[in-house]
Amino acid sequence: MSSILGEKLRVSVFGESHGAAVGAVADGFPAGEAIDENELKAFMRRRQGGGPLSTPRKEADEVEFLSGVFDGKTTGTPLCAVIRNADARSRDYEKLRDLPRPGHADYTAFLKWDGQADMRGGGHFSARLTAPLCAVGGVAKQILERKGVFLGAHLMEVAGETDDAFPLYPTAALFREVAGKDFPVLSDEAGARMRREIESAAAEKDSVGGVVECCVTGVMGGLGGPLFGGVEGALARALFGIPAVKGVEFGAGFSAARLRGSENNDAFCLDGQGNIRTETNRAGGILGGITNGMPLVVRAAFKPTPSIAREQRTVRLSAGEEAPLTITGRHDPCVAHRAVPVVEAVAALVILDLILEGK
Amino acid sequence: MSSILGEKLRVSVFGESHGAAVGAVADGFPAGEAIDENELKAFMRRRQGGGPLSTPRKEADEVEFLSGVFDGKTTGTPLCAVIRNADARSRDYEKLRDLPRPGHADYTAFLKWDGQADMRGGGHFSARLTAPLCAVGGVAKQILERKGVFLGAHLMEVAGETDDAFPLYPTAALFREVAGKDFPVLSDEAGARMRREIESAAAEKDSVGGVVECCVTGVMGGLGGPLFGGVEGALARALFGIPAVKGVEFGAGFSAARLRGSENNDAFCLDGQGNIRTETNRAGGILGGITNGMPLVVRAAFKPTPSIAREQRTVRLSAGEEAPLTITGRHDPCVAHRAVPVVEAVAALVILDLILEGK
Amino acid sequence: MSSILGEKLRVSVFGESHGAAVGAVADGFPAGEAIDENELKAFMRRRQGGGPLSTPRKEADEVEFLSGVFDGKTTGTPLCAVIRNADARSRDYEKLRDLPRPGHADYTAFLKWDGQADMRGGGHFSARLTAPLCAVGGVAKQILERKGVFLGAHLMEVAGETDDAFPLYPTAALFREVAGKDFPVLSDEAGARMRREIESAAAEKDSVGGVVECCVTGVMGGLGGPLFGGVEGALARALFGIPAVKGVEFGAGFSAARLRGSENNDAFCLDGQGNIRTETNRAGGILGGITNGMPLVVRAAFKPTPSIAREQRTVRLSAGEEAPLTITGRHDPCVAHRAVPVVEAVAALVILDLILEGK
Amino acid sequence: MSSILGEKLRVSVFGESHGAAVGAVADGFPAGEAIDENELKAFMRRRQGGGPLSTPRKEADEVEFLSGVFDGKTTGTPLCAVIRNADARSRDYEKLRDLPRPGHADYTAFLKWDGQADMRGGGHFSARLTAPLCAVGGVAKQILERKGVFLGAHLMEVAGETDDAFPLYPTAALFREVAGKDFPVLSDEAGARMRREIESAAAEKDSVGGVVECCVTGVMGGLGGPLFGGVEGALARALFGIPAVKGVEFGAGFSAARLRGSENNDAFCLDGQGNIRTETNRAGGILGGITNGMPLVVRAAFKPTPSIAREQRTVRLSAGEEAPLTITGRHDPCVAHRAVPVVEAVAALVILDLILEGK
Repeated sequence: MSSILGEKLRVSVFGESHGAAVGAVADGFPAGEAIDENELKAFMRRRQGGGPLSTPRKEADEVEFLSGVFDGKTTGTPLCAVIRNADARSRDYEKLRDLPRPGHADYTAFLKWDGQADMRGGGHFSARLTAPLCAVGGVAKQILERKGVFLGAHLMEVAGETDDAFPLYPTAALFREVAGKDFPVLSDEAGARMRREIESAAAEKDSVGGVVECCVTGVMGGLGGPLFGGVEGALARALFGIPAVKGVEFGAGFSAARLRGSENNDAFCLDGQGNIRTETNRAGGILGGITNGMPLVVRAAFKPTPSIAREQRTVRLSAGEEAPLTITGRHDPCVAHRAVPVVEAVAALVILDLILEGK
Repeated sequence: MSSILGEKLRVSVFGESHGAAVGAVADGFPAGEAIDENELKAFMRRRQGGGPLSTPRKEADEVEFLSGVFDGKTTGTPLCAVIRNADARSRDYEKLRDLPRPGHADYTAFLKWDGQADMRGGGHFSARLTAPLCAVGGVAKQILERKGVFLGAHLMEVAGETDDAFPLYPTAALFREVAGKDFPVLSDEAGARMRREIESAAAEKDSVGGVVECCVTGVMGGLGGPLFGGVEGALARALFGIPAVKGVEFGAGFSAARLRGSENNDAFCLDGQGNIRTETNRAGGILGGITNGMPLVVRAAFKPTPSIAREQRTVRLSAGEEAPLTITGRHDPCVAHRAVPVVEAVAALVILDLILEGK
Repeated sequence: MSSILGEKLRVSVFGESHGAAVGAVADGFPAGEAIDENELKAFMRRRQGGGPLSTPRKEADEVEFLSGVFDGKTTGTPLCAVIRNADARSRDYEKLRDLPRPGHADYTAFLKWDGQADMRGGGHFSARLTAPLCAVGGVAKQILERKGVFLGAHLMEVAGETDDAFPLYPTAALFREVAGKDFPVLSDEAGARMRREIESAAAEKDSVGGVVECCVTGVMGGLGGPLFGGVEGALARALFGIPAVKGVEFGAGFSAARLRGSENNDAFCLDGQGNIRTETNRAGGILGGITNGMPLVVRAAFKPTPSIAREQRTVRLSAGEEAPLTITGRHDPCVAHRAVPVVEAVAALVILDLILEGK
Repeated sequence: MSSILGEKLRVSVFGESHGAAVGAVADGFPAGEAIDENELKAFMRRRQGGGPLSTPRKEADEVEFLSGVFDGKTTGTPLCAVIRNADARSRDYEKLRDLPRPGHADYTAFLKWDGQADMRGGGHFSARLTAPLCAVGGVAKQILERKGVFLGAHLMEVAGETDDAFPLYPTAALFREVAGKDFPVLSDEAGARMRREIESAAAEKDSVGGVVECCVTGVMGGLGGPLFGGVEGALARALFGIPAVKGVEFGAGFSAARLRGSENNDAFCLDGQGNIRTETNRAGGILGGITNGMPLVVRAAFKPTPSIAREQRTVRLSAGEEAPLTITGRHDPCVAHRAVPVVEAVAALVILDLILEGK
């Protein structure tokens, strides 16, 4: 399967967790778009996490644009963003070459590349690869905002604790407010409950998963297409590209399967200005694979971090025998809260691509 | 977004519900593969439904291969499968041009193509387009079986009523057994409850949604790739191409977000022959976007059929005013049970493509 | 290599010379474009040839649109054009299965598909596959003309005899005039010399090749892109898809290799309306892979028809021994004159795709 | 048009001549392939030129692999090769922003990106972008050699002076011999004549073009495909991606248009080991878009360097008036001899992709 994301805006990601650098080439950004470096830095910081809920690994995540940017603006040519790896401690991972970690790509990478991949720190499968995605996705987000398209995301659920839902028409201010929080939720009270779940899992040498919800406003109707050309498919393919995502749904999603048609259908109506809207948005802004002008609503389910400090059972590849495994090293008890800007970044890349494609 | 599915095996679907024909071109089938026409017919029949649970529209769904087949075998060149439309009653749909049906693509197609699309019977968005998908997917399925790769699906849930789960290693015989049933479930008792839900919705001029689960056995490990080259992304993009799908998940899926890492990780172990397996399969056979040799497990959520006989609210496009709408015509109170072979067909196309791509 | 042509307008061709039908799916035509069926028929007739210069095989080449056309206009959904095969005489080709014809794809198709392809009449490699290309390319041409983009082509050279060159700015009227001729040349005197070459080759049971030149006017500047995104690459890939093409060049082409920079550079100048033009057009309308607003000029070299009535030497595949071969059947002593509309069709598909892609 | 080259091996090139760096991401190299850094350096040096025939700009062209390489071997993950720009003198190009150079992409880049591109030194259109192509193409070449596939190229023609032709079956030793020469020709006597043409053009403040011929041996038959999936189309699209290429031909190429079928057809025969070969190779190793097991033969025509020291005529964009232009700065009087390894690099990437695709 092609590893390139997008059609008019094509994104190619490279790098290994403990190699020289991680990066991305984004080819197809419109020319002449200013890049606000401070805003980009703030966006990058959101995925860094920190505090007791995240890995102690510290990277400056300084983005260098090798190409495609001139005098602070996009040039139209391919933009290459590179982030050097600094704080890599490879010793921690030596033994894992022979003892694939349950829930990780160690074993499947071994199968695919006959043991040749550089899997230190998870290699090309590491969540560190989401840093360059945020770099180019952050640029996409800035360009979208200038077009009146706003994106926001929040942590919807952790270990059964759920946040409030976005309103039918979230404002850019609401997106900014959530993005500015240490813990990206609508209800801080719900957030406190989620944090307790993460801390309690960490205390028990365990981890938890979560669900991230993303909403995009200001997308014109008529984008996307039927069947395999649909918006759901494009967004889903992109979101499943984020490590640890195991489910993607739009609007009512899986719960639509439990609704009646009369409950799930969104009645068409007119807003004050005579624009066609729907009274509810169970379609998540997409009908027949095509945007209908309502906010896009998509959710991605993240599995619990597979790296846990508890002893687990695996197989010693060289000996062909079952063996216990205790993972040391630095790991997140939950990745879902750090994944919130990553979901925004990936959604921004797909939506900008859709808009550049046009009707 | 490109409407073409696949890389080595590329599928392009065409046709309108009330046009001359629907069809598909599948380019990349291996050469010399025999097509069992009776088996293909039986497969096509599974999506036709019938009885009180389905639309009364009756089509023979006779598949004609215009190319790519010679002496009953694939030639390696592009295979074009065409199914003529016979039983089309276009009058039913005249008024819908001006009154977009809630939950349908009428309005978004209008936006995308400035009202030029042939939307009679849902046009290119009709579930009828799944017939050519079954034709070429049915061929893919036959080819896969010869390679020891077996696919099966069942109706997992309708309106809250749930079927049993597939066992960890479903057999080809189990897949055949379910495929042979009028109502494709593992537990007929659960099936009876689901049918009642569908009948009760139909009686109330309403519809229900459902979830289809598909399992693929015999897929070698090492297929797919990291990030945007992953198996989840490829399958999800394809499955979201099926009309009415609003959610896709793999293995534990959304429920993984509610598990601890220690619960969700699948421990590696050895089977009797010294092969590496996992004790459980919450990963759904995919780690880091790459197959791990375990059965693939994917579920797709179908929304309730939007065409219901109850009065609904919409907007009269020409007048720019809100208006009531009562849909006549022939419609399914549920599409999920007829979608079971469609999910198999689409999964077969993606898996065969993956296998042809190789590691 | 993907067999799909184009990005926004994707074309997939199918069919075998002696199978049920040949056809093409073109996905991405703009919606609401009227198709003038008479003009399309006239365009199709141009590739049929006839008379002593062409194969006596006679096909009505009736185009049926299975989808994507409604009330005589494109709908925006995939357009499938099918042409049934009628006058196929398969006996002529029986023995060729074992005796690959020199210069033909018989042997390479055998290698690629292990002898499984339906190679009767050249199968999927037959020049007959250019009929569906003309069907969808003819539609593209009509759409382009409505956008002020005109295409024309002429037979530039046959067996060393050369036609006049197009003027710097050919008019639509000139294109029409050439298209209306039995033998598509600018200078009928040159055409007479070419015909004599073809007739003389035919009389000697031999064949000749030729060069077709195509010009496109009215293409805005700024389309295409650098490196692998260039217009030359896109057009060349498409033109090499036409059977028998062995060379493609733009503007001065190969002769540019014999010019000095001072001779080959096109000086920029202003036309009467203050538009930037070039005084000459040795670049063929393309600089750095991007259109410069001047007419596009491209030439394709066609090899002589490999099917000749003279005895040739080949290998009997089953016996693994060298063997003589005398081809019977119906063949063109030259394909280049019939290829003129095919080059136009393929160029029209690429240029329309470029325009739909936009800057 | 997509700027990505290849299907299984996808190459994305980035960078500007006077920006921070130029580079390429090659995604799809097989894992575990050793990279001989000395050989790669020697390959890179071949495109650097030097002496009176080339630009005095000197770059170390040190290749840094940011990813995809571990312990000197490919890992299977995307390989990013970066070459920092050091010796860039941007002052020379300031005035060119307003005075597009004839024969250059200055004007078309201006049109495409509304004047936003960084065109210093030709920007993304500079021949400097061929350095990263040689870096990843050089890796591809090493991998191919281990598979018994050898590539070589020579300068076939400069300003009408022609080199000898490759023999029917060139050996790897012959390729190495030519590659080891300062001036890559078969006949040094012909080379001396070509050099004189280049020197004489340089002395007259002018430039010359040339033709590069590339041959690939050891490619199995059956690769590629009919119509738009053909090898000619794939190679041509790639070669037209090299700056200054205006024509591409295979085997007899344009001269085939002047041959009779009886002259152009390659008779099939058996070699001493019972393998099927052709007695001649006017098809350039490709029939019907598919390799036939004979050496591939392709030629690319390079236009004369458009940057010449003579005064030329152009248009001052800001004023909308015609204006004279005298280009200073450092330029090659001929690029064709330096393009020889670039043609090899690009051909290597395409052929390796074809082989990875398989039949």
